[in-house]
Amino acid sequence: MIPVEAGTIAVIFSSVRRAQGEDDGYDEMAARMDDLARSQPGFVGVESARDAETAFGVTVSYWRDEASAQAWKAVAEHRVAQERGRTQWYREYSVVVAEVTRAYGRQA
Amino acid sequence: MIPVEAGTIAVIFSSVRRAQGEDDGYDEMAARMDDLARSQPGFVGVESARDAETAFGVTVSYWRDEASAQAWKAVAEHRVAQERGRTQWYREYSVVVAEVTRAYGRQA
Repeated sequence: MIPVEAGTIAVIFSSVRRAQGEDDGYDEMAARMDDLARSQPGFVGVESARDAETAFGVTVSYWRDEASAQAWKAVAEHRVAQERGRTQWYREYSVVVAEVTRAYGRQA
Repeated sequence: MIPVEAGTIAVIFSSVRRAQGEDDGYDEMAARMDDLARSQPGFVGVESARDAETAFGVTVSYWRDEASAQAWKAVAEHRVAQERGRTQWYREYSVVVAEVTRAYGRQA
């Protein structure tokens, strides 16, 4: 489980992928963005799931504070990926930014 | 897209399912909980994705305010489902509650 606490910033990215080509660069980009996010200051964690049938997916990234979440959005290589997402990969998407008030759960 | 605005409460439920039996009641419960959540006061929206390969899934439900999110957690039938989740369906899970500060996106 991601070590989330009150005040952590959650960025909830939801998207529906377009019908996809064999090699549209998406998987490579997604892996690269995952690596790049993890290397950013203030990164806390990221988790992601996509339903193969519906093409709907949710990625939640967690950040130490609002400034680090904003900084990640502005990273040049990430901006390029965002633009390709809008024009090429996603039929629709939404981004919700929220501040954590509490968290609980159970680890395996 | 779900009509989320500043102040909306997001409940991020992440889970890893156990290896599943053919008829362990999960799909039925999941559909029932989806219906039941939609009928609650203060319900704003819900979205969900699970990756078949990793068995990892994320469900985000949105609520008008903290009180309606808390009330949903306490609904008797939902509590039964939570208990079966802990003992039977999920290998691990986490719940993160967060207050939305902003949201944007693009609809198809």
